[in-house]
Amino acid sequence: MSAAKQVYIAVIGAGGVGKCFLSQLQALAARKPSPKLNLAYIATSRKALFNDDYSAIDIGSAVDSLAGSSKSPLALSQVVDYLAAAPAKAVLVDNTSSQDVAELYPLALSRGISIVTPNKKAFSGSYKLWQDIFSAAASSGAKVYHESSVGAGLPVISTLKDLVETGDKVTKVEGVFSGTMSFLFNSFAPTEGQGGKWSAEVKNAKALGYTEPDPRDDLNGLDVARKLTILARLAGLPVESPTSFPVQSLIPKELESVASGDEFLEKLPAFDQQLEDIKAEAEKEGKVVRFVGSIDVATKSVKVGLEKFDRSHPIAALKGSDNIISFYTERYGSNPLIIQGAGAGGEVTAMGVTGDLIKVVSQIA
Amino acid sequence: MSAAKQVYIAVIGAGGVGKCFLSQLQALAARKPSPKLNLAYIATSRKALFNDDYSAIDIGSAVDSLAGSSKSPLALSQVVDYLAAAPAKAVLVDNTSSQDVAELYPLALSRGISIVTPNKKAFSGSYKLWQDIFSAAASSGAKVYHESSVGAGLPVISTLKDLVETGDKVTKVEGVFSGTMSFLFNSFAPTEGQGGKWSAEVKNAKALGYTEPDPRDDLNGLDVARKLTILARLAGLPVESPTSFPVQSLIPKELESVASGDEFLEKLPAFDQQLEDIKAEAEKEGKVVRFVGSIDVATKSVKVGLEKFDRSHPIAALKGSDNIISFYTERYGSNPLIIQGAGAGGEVTAMGVTGDLIKVVSQIA
Repeated sequence: MSAAKQVYIAVIGAGGVGKCFLSQLQALAARKPSPKLNLAYIATSRKALFNDDYSAIDIGSAVDSLAGSSKSPLALSQVVDYLAAAPAKAVLVDNTSSQDVAELYPLALSRGISIVTPNKKAFSGSYKLWQDIFSAAASSGAKVYHESSVGAGLPVISTLKDLVETGDKVTKVEGVFSGTMSFLFNSFAPTEGQGGKWSAEVKNAKALGYTEPDPRDDLNGLDVARKLTILARLAGLPVESPTSFPVQSLIPKELESVASGDEFLEKLPAFDQQLEDIKAEAEKEGKVVRFVGSIDVATKSVKVGLEKFDRSHPIAALKGSDNIISFYTERYGSNPLIIQGAGAGGEVTAMGVTGDLIKVVSQIA
Repeated sequence: MSAAKQVYIAVIGAGGVGKCFLSQLQALAARKPSPKLNLAYIATSRKALFNDDYSAIDIGSAVDSLAGSSKSPLALSQVVDYLAAAPAKAVLVDNTSSQDVAELYPLALSRGISIVTPNKKAFSGSYKLWQDIFSAAASSGAKVYHESSVGAGLPVISTLKDLVETGDKVTKVEGVFSGTMSFLFNSFAPTEGQGGKWSAEVKNAKALGYTEPDPRDDLNGLDVARKLTILARLAGLPVESPTSFPVQSLIPKELESVASGDEFLEKLPAFDQQLEDIKAEAEKEGKVVRFVGSIDVATKSVKVGLEKFDRSHPIAALKGSDNIISFYTERYGSNPLIIQGAGAGGEVTAMGVTGDLIKVVSQIA
């Protein structure tokens, strides 16, 4: 291995995850002398930093320099041109949740640029985009890693890929895939004690920063549906889109079109009885209700919504905003392989991205 | 990528894990055309198969051909010479639990041969051997992967490595690391119901194939101590050996030197009261007893033995012969990252080996 070996890194996005990633990248670049990780481009939707000669941007001061930069971001196709012309292999780290950036992956991959991202959009959009991405990667040899697209830094994608690639037969995947939903139901229907009113728990979750600015963006179930789409495809099911299977929304019909998240929260108490009834029904059976996603590979059925679980079930016993993912496979038999822990948050999401980058660099450099 | 690209594979060991691995390798080789996986050497302690010109051994019939082979295995240093002279990169898959093969890793790695193995010996023996292995790998660029040395195919080693490499601070690792111990205590001190006498549970576990031929090889705690040694070293503690920290043996002193496993089982009932007392003490606190290993990174303390857990604790709630491993880290905070599932068995152990081989091949080919 030559000491001069370099890998060029472009980073799009410098929000919560992006900032945590840069701090992890800085530590990594300082620790691993070979190959040298050369930050060659960094951009938000409004500004960019890069040098025409690909000379390295200082990672530690990149966020500050970016804020003071007078350069506009390159058009996405120009970012690809810029990276494809770099003096060595390049990786595009997409720390956005942008559909536009996601649409760019097939082009980038076809030109030999590897992709590392927590962005769910590319892998949970149309099946055509999924196929374009993986066929571009297969023909160019560029890599595409997206561990943090499901369960943040938890080893969910890598474990499912290992199971499939080593020839195990995954029969079922089941779990709690949303930190918000986990927190809401662990509080609303705890295994011990009573829990508050549904609308009060949603308000509380928002106040604690566990929901999107408009909680309906969590309660519509689409985030979980996107994650299930990704896992189902990795398990071999050609799922067409995250709206092509049953997804239960927890937004009362009457509140779907109110103007704002605040108005939604204000009017939500009038609908508390709906979830109260579901909770009471579960309690009658000695169970608790949880918002889960499941994939049955044999029957090709994917669904997202409320389910009842025994109080001693690992899904019922979850704490805080943890995720849990159970893989039922032929080799593991009746007791699934289970992965559990925080599935959201800047640091753990960035950890999945950094871990992926390490794996990609070890293969391309 | 050239279609002619090959990786040469040598396999030592064709027992339970070895046979499962060969069947997984056969499926893998059939599915992944590039790089071509070329089985160039396979041996047990008594026989071997190989061709001087490195031409491929048919994987599907390798076990049968090996049984009928008249060739003796090469001396271990000759295996290294043979692989180092192969026309392309080579991987040595050590499916034994042999200390002799483990001692060979530094030489093999220094000559550019990558290692993939479930063999705990190399990573849990002397700290000197550990250092020699990883410094040989670092200077030659050859890879060494050993996922199945802890928790079989569960993603334990890879997750700990990801945490450390991405800059998280692991504060504590705790878990049930032995399928045998898991099965014994889940039966002896269940969270619900009574459980049988200790000696009866040990006999039953042996009858079901959950113990070594002599159950003392499980009950002495050394297997768990070896796994803890590996994880502690990966977490940054320079643990000298698996006997350099407290390990509680469940073999009554008086039975340590009886001649056979059968005699041990015959005499064990006389000592049932010892574990009965420990179980009763835990019950008084509303807890159950489990055989666990733990690593406290800050205090550099590693220990293996009996601990009491609340009935609702994930370690208490374990089922069958499952393993559970909890990683407490700075990023994950108070709720650990947990991995759970079968931690023993030919197919899942081989899966860890095959998964490692895929990762190594993607980096060296």
